[in-house]
Amino acid sequence: MSGMIKPVEWKETYVKVLDQTLLPEEVKFMEIRDAQVMWDAIKMLCVRGAPAIGVGAGYGVAIEMQKHVKESTTEYHKKLKETIEYLATSRPTAVNLFWALDRMKETGEKYADESNEVCQKALEETAINIEKYEENACISIGENALTLLKDGMTLLTHCNAGGLATVHYGTALSPMLLGKERNINFKVYADETRPLLQGARLTAWELNQAGVDVTVITDNMAGMVMKQGKIDAVIVGCDRVAANGDAANKIGTYSVAVLAKHHNIPFYIAGPVSTIDMNTPTGDDIPIEERSAEEITCGFGKRTVPEGVKVYNPAFDVVPHELITAIITDKGIIANPDKEKVAQVVNAK
Amino acid sequence: MSGMIKPVEWKETYVKVLDQTLLPEEVKFMEIRDAQVMWDAIKMLCVRGAPAIGVGAGYGVAIEMQKHVKESTTEYHKKLKETIEYLATSRPTAVNLFWALDRMKETGEKYADESNEVCQKALEETAINIEKYEENACISIGENALTLLKDGMTLLTHCNAGGLATVHYGTALSPMLLGKERNINFKVYADETRPLLQGARLTAWELNQAGVDVTVITDNMAGMVMKQGKIDAVIVGCDRVAANGDAANKIGTYSVAVLAKHHNIPFYIAGPVSTIDMNTPTGDDIPIEERSAEEITCGFGKRTVPEGVKVYNPAFDVVPHELITAIITDKGIIANPDKEKVAQVVNAK
Repeated sequence: MSGMIKPVEWKETYVKVLDQTLLPEEVKFMEIRDAQVMWDAIKMLCVRGAPAIGVGAGYGVAIEMQKHVKESTTEYHKKLKETIEYLATSRPTAVNLFWALDRMKETGEKYADESNEVCQKALEETAINIEKYEENACISIGENALTLLKDGMTLLTHCNAGGLATVHYGTALSPMLLGKERNINFKVYADETRPLLQGARLTAWELNQAGVDVTVITDNMAGMVMKQGKIDAVIVGCDRVAANGDAANKIGTYSVAVLAKHHNIPFYIAGPVSTIDMNTPTGDDIPIEERSAEEITCGFGKRTVPEGVKVYNPAFDVVPHELITAIITDKGIIANPDKEKVAQVVNAK
Repeated sequence: MSGMIKPVEWKETYVKVLDQTLLPEEVKFMEIRDAQVMWDAIKMLCVRGAPAIGVGAGYGVAIEMQKHVKESTTEYHKKLKETIEYLATSRPTAVNLFWALDRMKETGEKYADESNEVCQKALEETAINIEKYEENACISIGENALTLLKDGMTLLTHCNAGGLATVHYGTALSPMLLGKERNINFKVYADETRPLLQGARLTAWELNQAGVDVTVITDNMAGMVMKQGKIDAVIVGCDRVAANGDAANKIGTYSVAVLAKHHNIPFYIAGPVSTIDMNTPTGDDIPIEERSAEEITCGFGKRTVPEGVKVYNPAFDVVPHELITAIITDKGIIANPDKEKVAQVVNAK
């Protein structure tokens, strides 16, 4: 895993971001020097995946604020507030974005009476710590997941919750990647995940690079492979977990959860506690981003839906907690999640 | 509907076939003059949909045999047998192909003692009658389906079982198209249907041309729109119905059926009795075509799965009869289908 490409990396004078929209055909990095370019990179999914968005946003604030250190303290803090508010508008669903920006805001407030230089240093450290937290969380998630899974199992995953979506090992892919290092081998079916094909482009790419046995299927094949008895467990990431354990994740996750239930296959959600939002009571309260019709109608450089036909393109859906066998966090496993069990793990942090 | 484009048309000296692989961007016709080109057209999905494949195969035999009328009767019937056997290898799942070829074979046998000219005339008439049968069947299916559906309902369909897949009104789309003519209006969600996007490219195109309110979604959104309460019924076509009522249809249909069950939404299979194969006891006995990995990895002229990654590409799956609310045929509605109920309708024909 030492050769793993980092999706977001702090380079002191810029933020190095892998443009994931070009994978698997091209491995190209962006050098981001201000918040506006980071906003675009998040919006356009150059950087994506709930934890990675949070890390990117933290660094986006830090790099933008470098430009304002020489301004008055009042002006500097005004810019800090604006930058945080601006980056918060990049995407609505993943709560890690808001969680990370809240950490940056708290740091700004804590150092409000210090010099801009001291505050700036603290902001950069906070952003780095967000990355470190997410990296450690991924390892803990992998460790916890491995207690639920057995060597030789076949897992199904949806979208990409690997190192590209997070830091280092990923969330849902952490047991596969960590397992590989420990000679615990899984066979993985990766849903291609329309419209943007993060499963085909990113999950298959990451797992293949790490030597994990991966097979890509279209999303609509998940039911068939489950019926064939090929799948021992489903494990996916999440963009926001509500206080009652309902979990939002990439569109299609809900269908996979229903299919898993029908086939009596365990369905696991993997994510750091930073993805649990105690201020969102239930899944119904999670804002679901709707994205442009063109992602569906001409996502491959070729028009596939006739002009003038309506398209519906929600980017996420919500899995009710009743369909979730367990939420695997860095702080522990929440089996049969509900409001009380979620609170126990969150409050223990 | 008078302006509807025919997917397959008998033109006396050639068979006119719409190349559906180019839709919706291009409306282009092939002029087919021998069995080999028809074989390719079926294999490559230029002509597709179970009933249309049967019609194409019948005409494929008729047009090929025109070339052999001047040969000896022995030679002519040898070629007829070879042509029928050859076209039967084009695709394995849709039973209408074998059903139509059996009709052609029977005609050949019936006219074996007549002159080649007389036999040829009979073969052409049989092929034309196959088309007429399928056209009438589509209207009857539409009529029967309309007794189950109400004006204003929202329907979900998968793949394409419209005029392009059949003759004229289609099977699953027949109530929508026939309804439109009678001012019975449905709102339709069309799964795009990966990998070849027949829902996005063909169903959306047909329904939009007919003025039916259609919205395209990716396959993995079906669960979400059902959960949102948007869908009143699911109706899809079929490629082969086994004697016990299990139905094979485009990959992804099984997932949709499970999702419909979970949401207590009626799930209807629409097809002519020519699609029911009493020689196939159950769904487990239906051969499922596996197609090339490239349909998934580079289906849009752009590579979306990394080189070297495995891909699984079954073209169909099977819905067990327990998940089917009713099979809507031209000869009647088979509610809660099982072996006895299927036999009743088939034997009544």
